Amino acid sequence: MPIKEGERVYLQLEDGKKYLIKVERGKFFSTHLGNIYFDQVMEKEFGEEIYTSQGKKAFLLQPGIVEDIFHMKRRTQIVYPKDLGFILLMLDVKENDRVIDVGLGSGAMCGALARLVGEGGKVYAYEKREEFIAIARYNLSEWGWEDRVEIKEKDIKDGLEEREVDALFLDVPNPWDYLEECWRALRGGGRLAIVSPTAGQVMEVLRKLESLPFRGTEVWESLFRQYKVNPSAFRPTDRMVAHTTYMIFSRKVLPSACSSDLKEAEN
Amino acid sequence: MPIKEGERVYLQLEDGKKYLIKVERGKFFSTHLGNIYFDQVMEKEFGEEIYTSQGKKAFLLQPGIVEDIFHMKRRTQIVYPKDLGFILLMLDVKENDRVIDVGLGSGAMCGALARLVGEGGKVYAYEKREEFIAIARYNLSEWGWEDRVEIKEKDIKDGLEEREVDALFLDVPNPWDYLEECWRALRGGGRLAIVSPTAGQVMEVLRKLESLPFRGTEVWESLFRQYKVNPSAFRPTDRMVAHTTYMIFSRKVLPSACSSDLKEAEN
Amino acid sequence: MPIKEGERVYLQLEDGKKYLIKVERGKFFSTHLGNIYFDQVMEKEFGEEIYTSQGKKAFLLQPGIVEDIFHMKRRTQIVYPKDLGFILLMLDVKENDRVIDVGLGSGAMCGALARLVGEGGKVYAYEKREEFIAIARYNLSEWGWEDRVEIKEKDIKDGLEEREVDALFLDVPNPWDYLEECWRALRGGGRLAIVSPTAGQVMEVLRKLESLPFRGTEVWESLFRQYKVNPSAFRPTDRMVAHTTYMIFSRKVLPSACSSDLKEAEN
Amino acid sequence: MPIKEGERVYLQLEDGKKYLIKVERGKFFSTHLGNIYFDQVMEKEFGEEIYTSQGKKAFLLQPGIVEDIFHMKRRTQIVYPKDLGFILLMLDVKENDRVIDVGLGSGAMCGALARLVGEGGKVYAYEKREEFIAIARYNLSEWGWEDRVEIKEKDIKDGLEEREVDALFLDVPNPWDYLEECWRALRGGGRLAIVSPTAGQVMEVLRKLESLPFRGTEVWESLFRQYKVNPSAFRPTDRMVAHTTYMIFSRKVLPSACSSDLKEAEN
Repeated sequence: MPIKEGERVYLQLEDGKKYLIKVERGKFFSTHLGNIYFDQVMEKEFGEEIYTSQGKKAFLLQPGIVEDIFHMKRRTQIVYPKDLGFILLMLDVKENDRVIDVGLGSGAMCGALARLVGEGGKVYAYEKREEFIAIARYNLSEWGWEDRVEIKEKDIKDGLEEREVDALFLDVPNPWDYLEECWRALRGGGRLAIVSPTAGQVMEVLRKLESLPFRGTEVWESLFRQYKVNPSAFRPTDRMVAHTTYMIFSRKVLPSACSSDLKEAEN
Repeated sequence: MPIKEGERVYLQLEDGKKYLIKVERGKFFSTHLGNIYFDQVMEKEFGEEIYTSQGKKAFLLQPGIVEDIFHMKRRTQIVYPKDLGFILLMLDVKENDRVIDVGLGSGAMCGALARLVGEGGKVYAYEKREEFIAIARYNLSEWGWEDRVEIKEKDIKDGLEEREVDALFLDVPNPWDYLEECWRALRGGGRLAIVSPTAGQVMEVLRKLESLPFRGTEVWESLFRQYKVNPSAFRPTDRMVAHTTYMIFSRKVLPSACSSDLKEAEN
Repeated sequence: MPIKEGERVYLQLEDGKKYLIKVERGKFFSTHLGNIYFDQVMEKEFGEEIYTSQGKKAFLLQPGIVEDIFHMKRRTQIVYPKDLGFILLMLDVKENDRVIDVGLGSGAMCGALARLVGEGGKVYAYEKREEFIAIARYNLSEWGWEDRVEIKEKDIKDGLEEREVDALFLDVPNPWDYLEECWRALRGGGRLAIVSPTAGQVMEVLRKLESLPFRGTEVWESLFRQYKVNPSAFRPTDRMVAHTTYMIFSRKVLPSACSSDLKEAEN
Repeated sequence: MPIKEGERVYLQLEDGKKYLIKVERGKFFSTHLGNIYFDQVMEKEFGEEIYTSQGKKAFLLQPGIVEDIFHMKRRTQIVYPKDLGFILLMLDVKENDRVIDVGLGSGAMCGALARLVGEGGKVYAYEKREEFIAIARYNLSEWGWEDRVEIKEKDIKDGLEEREVDALFLDVPNPWDYLEECWRALRGGGRLAIVSPTAGQVMEVLRKLESLPFRGTEVWESLFRQYKVNPSAFRPTDRMVAHTTYMIFSRKVLPSACSSDLKEAEN
């Protein structure tokens, strides 16, 4: 099945350079190794090779979620795949779930959540900065997830509008200020994930979580190490990412002696 | 909404012990801190607390994919959540995908794949050892994924029956022996993930991949470090998992000068 | 050259068990695989094998600093070799140096420092808890370093007595309280190393260091991963030490505009 | 005590740039922030600050072993401090030891060994490439260790000339070819350390070690992670060294049934 107009293509040049492009009839994409003509692309299938105007080889691949994230339009720090995969598991996001994403940023986490909740689910994404909303909207539309996401241009200081959500992802500089509100929005047993880059932030969040009806709190960090793929000199690469973020996970509980203000808030 | 008969519950005792149990009317679950009566459980909602016959507190939570994996019936090594989340991203598994899982083992990866492909997708799981199939079938049924999985009691030496699959997960002691067959089963651009615990196995796989029409090969390992959650003594735990597996990723390509035997096999 | 009476021997049994023992004429050492008779040991050289009373093999090796540390008498947390080697380099301890060790604890770091300063150097070790001094004295005497160490049973709240020392190792729960005093004891350019297990402690130290004439502050942590030595299944061990301590390093400087109280204290 | 002519100074400019320079009367050192006049340096003590011709501040510090290594003249890969400290402990190098260093390279490990063996010890350094010997000789002379080192311009294929050495450091591309010779040179219980960057090399070494009278073989790798020193944003740096080398350690034993050729070789 040949590649169609409007499809997004992950182009791998023979020198290893990679681009995420969108097929437009009659046009071309310009690289340092020559042009790729989209009309020629549309005669190919995914997986096939194509030649640039300079006769250099390139492969035509489908972009996946990892390529989408690394090549997306963005003006914010993103959640890296090394952490993203783990967070999605720990949040247990699955089809038909209703989840909240605070703050939206450039939309990477939002897109990942939207992908998982399926057609029957919904992602409520909060973002107070207008300029990020435009970027995120563009990205979500490119990936095809607009219908599953409800973007709210709102400061979460003013509260979350949903109740009984299955999971909540919180990525703001001062998460400790919003944990009661997160509690209110979650269903009983609902899952909370917070990312914070500094140790002091995590300590502040932990201090606050202790005073609220959350249980099973865990804090993790991940180190991913890549290896060179030369089989006769198999060894890790020389350098690696040392730190992206700490990841904090917890679950809402409903103790009988639950502090009354929270109880009321829930009703 | 109260917990129903037949539902699976992740029980957290006040001393931190955790159990995955299934609600059966009129029966009880016995712990070292006393019994939990299911009839009482059925008067509670998820997130609420309950008391054992000894008056000890416990929380009633929903099990998620991470709890399912750590509490599942198994007789094989499992893929850990720290690796699983990343593999699922790198394989780009999503709704409506058709994917192959070799070998099935106790079914953890198969369940994770089934969850992601949605009702419109399918997982083809190969396993030659009858005793594992029984365990995996039990687990998949507990999780509710039987309909999305087609289990094949078959040695993959005899070939994979599917073609044009989106992704393939290969977890066998000698993956290098099956890479041509994996290539045949994948669609152009389709994604392959292999887990191998030893460096020698990875080197052997890399040697073989070099000779086949695969591109974009990457090898990774992950180290996840957990922290103590006491905010006034925030620090990593004393010990951690040092190694589970190396993860190898690659993608099928269709070069024009693709070796003829593979071309033929594809048709 | 045969092993002599009074010598310390690192015994490796054929099942992998290891003991650090001291040769005493006419006596024996009892193991779960039978007795080792010291009179027989004294007929052997280091590196040779010996048989237990049950006919099991064992090797007679010299203990080194790593074996000394892991087999020493102790009632405190020790500095692990993985960190110790790096700290010794960063402190630049060498022959003829005068260094301070606060607190002494069981004496592991003190012994390592004494070893490096040579006969012309000196280690001043502060410890306020009498019971640890007895243990440390025993260990230092076993290793042969008593002459190079001057133990001071003193709370460092009452001040350090030395001036112009080359390096200072600080291992106390509240290092931030003693940094002025460390500054006074060090020579210009002298090196300070602090070990603290929690992030909060490090932050507190950093806050204090910023306000004092120290430069070149660095904070490090180390992860050492061991591998299985089976060449056909080369891979890391399953578990590892995840955390021992953060290591903080800095150097005393003498700015012209140095805060006057410190200046005076120095004179 | 003022800094003297000929002394080596570790200069830290106020912008963080660092240089290792040597004081020469009447001359100056040129930096991007202005000149440092050595005659002014000789009026200062270590730890004090000095001003460049542009009025920029700099601190005058003594270089230590870590600064020596990172600023030395070199044309080879060096052993990093993160690994070096651990290797020195595992080799148990101490005053009066006789040790062998193969190959010398630029002399970093040789200098570290020379520093530890004291005036009563000796380092025998083998190197077959003349151009490296010149560099190493220069470095060792700068550090003041020439007298403790005997450099041998020799291919170790032709054998090691020493016997009964306490420790041996082996850093060559094909260490497995020289393990019998290392065994001959070591005393009973003597310690061997090998550095190899690739997994394949380590596997080859392990295969060979199994067939020789060595015991207690261990393989390690180290990951050191540095932290940002801003106390209110305490977190690891973004990137880190992912790999330098695997470290292999073992000890020579003298089994009664030791293979006869080795026995003979020893006499």
